[in-house]
Amino acid sequence: MLKRSAETTDRLFHALADANRRAVIESLTRGPATVSELAAQLGVTVAATVQHLQVLQETELVRTEKVGRVRTCQIDTAGLRNAEAWLARQRTTWEHRLDRLGAVLDHQTKEPES
Amino acid sequence: MLKRSAETTDRLFHALADANRRAVIESLTRGPATVSELAAQLGVTVAATVQHLQVLQETELVRTEKVGRVRTCQIDTAGLRNAEAWLARQRTTWEHRLDRLGAVLDHQTKEPES
Repeated sequence: MLKRSAETTDRLFHALADANRRAVIESLTRGPATVSELAAQLGVTVAATVQHLQVLQETELVRTEKVGRVRTCQIDTAGLRNAEAWLARQRTTWEHRLDRLGAVLDHQTKEPES
Repeated sequence: MLKRSAETTDRLFHALADANRRAVIESLTRGPATVSELAAQLGVTVAATVQHLQVLQETELVRTEKVGRVRTCQIDTAGLRNAEAWLARQRTTWEHRLDRLGAVLDHQTKEPES
């Protein structure tokens, strides 16, 4: 279970480690787009765009829906939330550690000299 | 400049896309550790740990300092902040879009029938 979750997180950050895939996310946060529109925005082929979209779908960063012959893409906030949650956990642990260190220093300075 | 920044962000998310490197970050948020301690925690060789640390240093996720023969590692919050900032920007853009859509719907329901 833990292993599977680690692999999911690996794939999530891997999906974000590509400028074109991040450009797709940046575009879709402003509104839905078709695959052709995204391909034009990226300046790459439709085939390359479809490959990026597959990676983004598997990691819950993008959702797509086909109506007739047109596939429309929109942001899936689940992936972004998962990535933010992992980073926020690290920050919280770190900040708690700083708080504890601060409390120790505070206690030491208040300690009367003997 | 934009290209360089995109490559930096590529490398940052790539650094996070590895369970062992994330384990190093999770460990260091709780306190500094030596390379040997991290290697023991990960259950990998010191050489493999050093390679992970190089990737983490280049992306400002970890700082290391050598005193005598011992290299001590600590968290570098710059990398975590950069990753969180990118994700937060996407969420903000998305939330603004939802607010605008909400305002449009609100306006439509308030519009008197003609």
